[in-house]
Amino acid sequence: MSEQIKVVLTDDEMPRQWYNLQADFEKPLPPPLGPDGNPIGPEALAPVFPMNLIEQEVSQERWTDIPEAILGILKMWRPSPLYRATRLEQHLGTPAKIYYKNEGVSPAGSHKPNTAIAQAYYNKIAGTKRLTTETGAGQWGSALSFSCAMVGLECKVYMVRISFDQKPFRKIMMQTWGGECVPSPSEMTEVGRKILADDPNCPGSLGIAISEALEEAVQSEDTKYSLGSVLNHVCMHQTVIGLEAKKQFEKIGETPDVIIGCAGGGSNFAGLAFPYVCDKIHGKDVRIIAVEPAACPTLTRAPYVYDSGDVAMMTPLMAMHSLGHTFVPAPIHAGGLRYHGMAPMVSHCVKEGLVEANSLHQLECYKAAVTFARTEGFIPAPETSHAIAQVIREANQAKEEGKEKVIVMNWSGHGLMDLSAYQAYFDGKLSDHELSDADMEKALHCIDGLPKPPA
Amino acid sequence: MSEQIKVVLTDDEMPRQWYNLQADFEKPLPPPLGPDGNPIGPEALAPVFPMNLIEQEVSQERWTDIPEAILGILKMWRPSPLYRATRLEQHLGTPAKIYYKNEGVSPAGSHKPNTAIAQAYYNKIAGTKRLTTETGAGQWGSALSFSCAMVGLECKVYMVRISFDQKPFRKIMMQTWGGECVPSPSEMTEVGRKILADDPNCPGSLGIAISEALEEAVQSEDTKYSLGSVLNHVCMHQTVIGLEAKKQFEKIGETPDVIIGCAGGGSNFAGLAFPYVCDKIHGKDVRIIAVEPAACPTLTRAPYVYDSGDVAMMTPLMAMHSLGHTFVPAPIHAGGLRYHGMAPMVSHCVKEGLVEANSLHQLECYKAAVTFARTEGFIPAPETSHAIAQVIREANQAKEEGKEKVIVMNWSGHGLMDLSAYQAYFDGKLSDHELSDADMEKALHCIDGLPKPPA
Repeated sequence: MSEQIKVVLTDDEMPRQWYNLQADFEKPLPPPLGPDGNPIGPEALAPVFPMNLIEQEVSQERWTDIPEAILGILKMWRPSPLYRATRLEQHLGTPAKIYYKNEGVSPAGSHKPNTAIAQAYYNKIAGTKRLTTETGAGQWGSALSFSCAMVGLECKVYMVRISFDQKPFRKIMMQTWGGECVPSPSEMTEVGRKILADDPNCPGSLGIAISEALEEAVQSEDTKYSLGSVLNHVCMHQTVIGLEAKKQFEKIGETPDVIIGCAGGGSNFAGLAFPYVCDKIHGKDVRIIAVEPAACPTLTRAPYVYDSGDVAMMTPLMAMHSLGHTFVPAPIHAGGLRYHGMAPMVSHCVKEGLVEANSLHQLECYKAAVTFARTEGFIPAPETSHAIAQVIREANQAKEEGKEKVIVMNWSGHGLMDLSAYQAYFDGKLSDHELSDADMEKALHCIDGLPKPPA
Repeated sequence: MSEQIKVVLTDDEMPRQWYNLQADFEKPLPPPLGPDGNPIGPEALAPVFPMNLIEQEVSQERWTDIPEAILGILKMWRPSPLYRATRLEQHLGTPAKIYYKNEGVSPAGSHKPNTAIAQAYYNKIAGTKRLTTETGAGQWGSALSFSCAMVGLECKVYMVRISFDQKPFRKIMMQTWGGECVPSPSEMTEVGRKILADDPNCPGSLGIAISEALEEAVQSEDTKYSLGSVLNHVCMHQTVIGLEAKKQFEKIGETPDVIIGCAGGGSNFAGLAFPYVCDKIHGKDVRIIAVEPAACPTLTRAPYVYDSGDVAMMTPLMAMHSLGHTFVPAPIHAGGLRYHGMAPMVSHCVKEGLVEANSLHQLECYKAAVTFARTEGFIPAPETSHAIAQVIREANQAKEEGKEKVIVMNWSGHGLMDLSAYQAYFDGKLSDHELSDADMEKALHCIDGLPKPPA
């Protein structure tokens, strides 16, 4: 029964600016390309995003002021607490000090509202009346529905049909916040109708849902599209996490030696890591580790290529680690980590040697999640469990080496909407999914003939 | 898009003592009675509770020090934030200032761990190895499972079978924390086997579950029983809520005019209200309102009587408002408010004119809950929605009267485990349930012949 150590900041200590890692990259990010293979300008994105967000997407400025109106809403749950996991340390018998930044305290239960609020706000002041988006398991769709309710926008979410049917609770959250959630493919778009005509029982995919959300957005002047990860401005909005963590560590006179986050599209990882990547670029000795599922090993096994963000190739081509835009990962429960690509900025960090990557199997992650819940109390999301499992590996290694090191992880969200996955784990119904070399090779065929990024 | 106003306390400002309202009652609480109708002494409770908690149950001391070990764990989520609901105020167009104390921030999602941690701790230091309890919808069972994991006790929860089958998620939470959750009636106790022999498909009831949990507790020296509401020491453990709120209001130079909480067993209401009832006893002008469901109108319509806490009459008789220990309320979704009795201390407050009571129908409460979620962001539990609906009534009345008044409610927990109830509301499948006079009269027959409390 050891004392809880919790480092909190006052509202006044909240970061007033977002950090843009692009300003500190030695080599610049390769530009996004259009269908013709030439770099696109900001105007190419204008049918989809408002200009204020496009400016952030292409900005090379190190700091961007956070508008007071956004700070006002983020204060509902920010600054988020930094916890020391003393009971987990004792359980492991490790000399390492383990800290976690609890992003599960937001009304939607994850880090996602950090950017959802910002995107909703910028759309609101740009005159947007309605946002469309896609969602898989529903984490992002619920965060955007919540955020649209807070700023006064309509929200339409295309949810992958199989998740819509199997995971009804996220849909009810969206509805409670006034969001409209429809199963995708739907009869509401041309692409949806076409797919349903071919296959009335199509279970849907993230790629189809993106296409439907984009189709609706481009057809109406006052409707825009919103994406919950991958893009530069999304990663930037999440840096409040790392900027807060730095202030919190300053308060207790500690400096983390190891920074850990799970990575699907990359924004949750980026949020904690990027302010520390900046330190590393400027000479600081720190290990920064992105953790992904072995079933979707983007950073650890996929090539660094130009690829599209969606299956229908409606987005520009981005230079990133990708398993190919047609890749469909095994049905692991960490739905937020089942993405074929990776944020270009995170990919760039790995390519430049600033960030390590590791992939883990889900059984190890669930075991780690249960250990965490029984020692630290908070029940983690399946995505978050990947960070926890890596932390436990590092802590065990510290024990073997007899080294005291300071580890911090981004605890990206709670698992209260994912309890059926825990049940499956307890019932022995989960298994590990290793992507075979043959399947990976097959998946990568879809990028044959696309341009290659600079080496 | 108005600024979030959030009043926080540092860990150092956490209350160091619990408040016992009994010390300030002008008339003392009538004593609990044994089966023979005579007052019972502390020793009568010893087979069920450890002596350190029995001492708290009968204590007349105003203040009890909170052990450091308990403070250490409560700090995981305490002090809880006090929010001003500015967006709700704007939506209602009221001159009232509305505040809510957010108890949904605990790992189990409600105020319940405030006492679960304390009870687990006192049992631990008294040598208990294992706690048994009952749970209806699962809120209390999950809070106790969490707390047992934190202090290192085994936990066995008898969950009403119909809830066990219909609401699997709370059961998975318990399992995740290492608690054992079994459907009641079970084959594990004599009372359970007897009931199953008569009716193998018995859906169970809270009364049966209590009987099973008690039976298991009394049969083993190192197993004790734990109750999540009603009792004096449970109400006392919850007073950290009101004590924190008072400090938070001091910080912003406000004084609440109206205090509101929902009331099932009474402990959540007591937690916020009792420190303010103390002020009222000492002459302060403040309205304090307990809100209950019209389907289970204990405080508003039931007589003040001596009755048992469970259907099998295994508990002592307590002086309280009660609909009769055999009463089974209509199946409203606010499971935590479906209790036939009411905490003796809360009942006493109402009898002495210190606390008002009101009963509300569930459709008004769900409407209020959705309004709250869409303005303030956090999705409330069905129980909490009763407090919100009363707040909205008070705020609308303030608008009619053109009066600025300060209202505060105990926001007892989040509704993320209750989303199917929201779905039923959206689908128009919920209805109101008014208890008929005839049904109430019938229910009260079971207390015929029991002793009467002093007038």
